[in-house]
Amino acid sequence: MTLIDEVVKEVNTVMGMVKPEQIDQAEKVITKDKRIFILGAGRSGLMAKGFAMRLMHIGYTVFVIGETITPSIQSGDVLVSVSGSGKTGSVLEPTEKAKTDGVAIVAVTSNGDSPLGKLGDATIVVPGATKGGDGVKSIQLLSTLFDQSVHITLDVLCLQLSRRDHVSNDAAKATHSNME
Amino acid sequence: MTLIDEVVKEVNTVMGMVKPEQIDQAEKVITKDKRIFILGAGRSGLMAKGFAMRLMHIGYTVFVIGETITPSIQSGDVLVSVSGSGKTGSVLEPTEKAKTDGVAIVAVTSNGDSPLGKLGDATIVVPGATKGGDGVKSIQLLSTLFDQSVHITLDVLCLQLSRRDHVSNDAAKATHSNME
Amino acid sequence: MTLIDEVVKEVNTVMGMVKPEQIDQAEKVITKDKRIFILGAGRSGLMAKGFAMRLMHIGYTVFVIGETITPSIQSGDVLVSVSGSGKTGSVLEPTEKAKTDGVAIVAVTSNGDSPLGKLGDATIVVPGATKGGDGVKSIQLLSTLFDQSVHITLDVLCLQLSRRDHVSNDAAKATHSNME
Amino acid sequence: MTLIDEVVKEVNTVMGMVKPEQIDQAEKVITKDKRIFILGAGRSGLMAKGFAMRLMHIGYTVFVIGETITPSIQSGDVLVSVSGSGKTGSVLEPTEKAKTDGVAIVAVTSNGDSPLGKLGDATIVVPGATKGGDGVKSIQLLSTLFDQSVHITLDVLCLQLSRRDHVSNDAAKATHSNME
Repeated sequence: MTLIDEVVKEVNTVMGMVKPEQIDQAEKVITKDKRIFILGAGRSGLMAKGFAMRLMHIGYTVFVIGETITPSIQSGDVLVSVSGSGKTGSVLEPTEKAKTDGVAIVAVTSNGDSPLGKLGDATIVVPGATKGGDGVKSIQLLSTLFDQSVHITLDVLCLQLSRRDHVSNDAAKATHSNME
Repeated sequence: MTLIDEVVKEVNTVMGMVKPEQIDQAEKVITKDKRIFILGAGRSGLMAKGFAMRLMHIGYTVFVIGETITPSIQSGDVLVSVSGSGKTGSVLEPTEKAKTDGVAIVAVTSNGDSPLGKLGDATIVVPGATKGGDGVKSIQLLSTLFDQSVHITLDVLCLQLSRRDHVSNDAAKATHSNME
Repeated sequence: MTLIDEVVKEVNTVMGMVKPEQIDQAEKVITKDKRIFILGAGRSGLMAKGFAMRLMHIGYTVFVIGETITPSIQSGDVLVSVSGSGKTGSVLEPTEKAKTDGVAIVAVTSNGDSPLGKLGDATIVVPGATKGGDGVKSIQLLSTLFDQSVHITLDVLCLQLSRRDHVSNDAAKATHSNME
Repeated sequence: MTLIDEVVKEVNTVMGMVKPEQIDQAEKVITKDKRIFILGAGRSGLMAKGFAMRLMHIGYTVFVIGETITPSIQSGDVLVSVSGSGKTGSVLEPTEKAKTDGVAIVAVTSNGDSPLGKLGDATIVVPGATKGGDGVKSIQLLSTLFDQSVHITLDVLCLQLSRRDHVSNDAAKATHSNME
């Protein structure tokens, strides 16, 4: 078995444990009449940004916490927070604050019983290995398996949203940045 | 004279050469019914981002080229492009493309006769020293004097916009990110 | 078959077409005595950043083009450029310039015959669907399948590098940002 | 008096209150044998990034907290933290942690008696108006006057460092990104 095969097998294992009904639950929270804010740190944060970019492509009003033009978050908004351990301070603390302020939380974590996992109005558990040792064991470094599986999971959520909202590939293409 | 005094004197000299009527011209192009896109590279790019952030605070729909949630730019939008030399490829080429597509251009450069300067529907000349040697001579490194003067110039433009639009400091504060 | 299963199946198909010997070729170009620069746009760019972050964790001197502290690139450096179509202007043009300046190029693209694919001293072809229609067909939007497959491919490359260099998970953990 | 004149006058007033000996103190902490980390949020954060970029140009090993390739910070490193109020959570908390870990702190704030101000091994007070109402009063919005004055102050610090280290403008130019 090649190293590619070993890694792909790990991804398959984790994705087989992601529960479609949890993705459905998140889908219900994310609607076009709401502003969607995205929060993550490190490589999870990059995956969160990839999700934000695709939400923009399919017509959502979306902001990434920490980027230049992100306004204040308010009651009635949605916050999607990603943390493998569910304990990352720079993700957890703002999410707790937002929850208190009446923001709906979508939590994405390897550990549903973590502080972040418990905050979610919808929580998606992606049980890939994290750098703290949670989740399915992996030959890969740190939280690599979590990152890969979160990436695919959030893309599935995007695909569901685009189908629900009847957004075509051509419509998404028209919204894609044309300054690259 | 302290080093602080010398540097401040340079800034005063450049700011004394920025033409208020050019700022007024840019003010006319930037209106709340339009989407405003912001483009810059390097330290000029950071100043451009600072301008974008403040535009958001005072209620504009604004995007930074290259950030996560920036959609395609279209005819009817406004593009604010900043380049000291007016020749930076990663700024000039997208601006030329946008101009062709019917986007209104606000050019900010040390050299009004540069390719970027000539593209502007409104052009603000900020004649601070750049790394290519344009503008007022400086004891500071590279384009430092240009960056400082662009910073202040764009803040003056923001102040004019906020006054024209009757945006109070409290209203701006309410929009400021509350996740820091 | 659930939507998760359909998406995972697509990823498996593409990953089955990535050639291990192309990853090996890239591995030979990336060594610790060289500075590694990373370039990508949009969602591919986020995957490229994830690769850069992991290279840092395993001890490489690595820079992302466009980030704050990225110095000039010089002969003797390595540039890893990612573009699905292999034709993205903001990726292709700097890569061409770097190649001319004596920089070794690792190209990652869905199309080995694209301009970017032909520039590579090592080229890894990841034949996932892109927004221009290259590669394996997909039910997913735009270049999603390419992004997912590039993510995994670059992680495999990282894993190979860490094994070659004898970097343990604990060593990588010690280098991971502790300010999150 | 034009609006430009009014704004420049405000900057002059604040810069007249910045103490050269505080800049000298910071200069002593920042040396080429140390790794320099930079931290800030919002527009202050953009000014901090501008400082980081210039430190790179003059030959320092410098990292921005939150960017892709930033490693863990360790005892013996230097952290430059910027916050107008000196109370911004996302700046203050990591700075407190770093201080405990043996990192030398350069604090830049409008309020020397703030929690951040008290943490500094060197503290530079830049008494421009902030969004919380500290510092010299201003006609400008939020912390604009602080941002402008911090920008110039950090540029003066850079100029002092470049002179102490005998870095010429040409040497800085050679290090400047050539991929723009």
